[in-house]
Amino acid sequence: MTPPPPGTPRRTPAGAAVLREDVTEAIRAAVFEELASVGFARMSIEGIARRAGVGKTAVYRRWKSKLSLVLDLLTAFAAQGLPAPATGSLYGDVRALLEVASYALRHPVASQVIPDLLVEAARHPEIAEAVRATLLDSQQGVAAQVVRAAVERGELPEGTDPERALDLIVGPLYWRLVVVRSPLPEGYLDDLAASAVAALTS
Amino acid sequence: MTPPPPGTPRRTPAGAAVLREDVTEAIRAAVFEELASVGFARMSIEGIARRAGVGKTAVYRRWKSKLSLVLDLLTAFAAQGLPAPATGSLYGDVRALLEVASYALRHPVASQVIPDLLVEAARHPEIAEAVRATLLDSQQGVAAQVVRAAVERGELPEGTDPERALDLIVGPLYWRLVVVRSPLPEGYLDDLAASAVAALTS
Repeated sequence: MTPPPPGTPRRTPAGAAVLREDVTEAIRAAVFEELASVGFARMSIEGIARRAGVGKTAVYRRWKSKLSLVLDLLTAFAAQGLPAPATGSLYGDVRALLEVASYALRHPVASQVIPDLLVEAARHPEIAEAVRATLLDSQQGVAAQVVRAAVERGELPEGTDPERALDLIVGPLYWRLVVVRSPLPEGYLDDLAASAVAALTS
Repeated sequence: MTPPPPGTPRRTPAGAAVLREDVTEAIRAAVFEELASVGFARMSIEGIARRAGVGKTAVYRRWKSKLSLVLDLLTAFAAQGLPAPATGSLYGDVRALLEVASYALRHPVASQVIPDLLVEAARHPEIAEAVRATLLDSQQGVAAQVVRAAVERGELPEGTDPERALDLIVGPLYWRLVVVRSPLPEGYLDDLAASAVAALTS
């Protein structure tokens, strides 16, 4: 099921007051800024409302909690990303995936909000499940398509595990950009793509 | 500089009151539990003191802030880990590193506290610097030794970048254990060691 892109008006239940879309957008933008500046744990509906210039009721009329608000943002973020590449070669597909991933991992959502939610996920299974559903499933779906195409071309053996493939492709880049936080040297993504292909075909 | 192992009495400045080591240990244990249960952002010196069964002054007499307390724990954690393996082969060394890393990454310090601090690090450069100094430098030192030994044996080319080597070795495992949080299939570390060697020698 594809979630609606950000900005899509929600279905209005019969008899419900129409929600002003510009207010909804202002709240979304405020959540984003609050998350980046204070983090999930310290963020409050009150702080969001203040930043958006609306009352708390305007927030609660749209989302029942800060968790549902954040998951809504994440879903929108996951939906805009990651079409499966189809370059015709495993190296090409891996290189394209790394390009998209390196861009996404430098986006504030990935570099601040996702690690933040992973922290919450370690303590709250319902957050873990939501993060998995919105973010990991889409990435694993893309990895599965790349692997399937490579198997069809005879570049990877039948039965290659797509989950392990994703570990080998995205893991080093995530470690470098999100954990170590050091800049990528010239040619790093090219080298990493070649390394990942060697690792996958080893 | 090697930090003292946990439990080593601190040097007592001349004229200072002697700090009771059992109180120090109770506070350390309490910090650990607070970090794991509420996280860095929500943790307070008051909560730590309450859990340790001491007054707030007992905490402040030892550490000036919750940041210095946590960094002290991290230093002890980093110091106990990661002797450089010397198995005589690149595969053996990588496999040994992965064994230690998979153990460390399942430890609550790594799986809860470190991601938590990385979140803070994204907002506070002084935390980023401290995390880098206590955790990454020791890992990068180990990777540098493994690479140097492999270059000497002729298994890796002169000029292999140890930082990139660490990305390729630890990245996939970190992604799997800390981000995806899915269990390791049978033989995963053996396969990953082979993949990392293939990636490094590609």
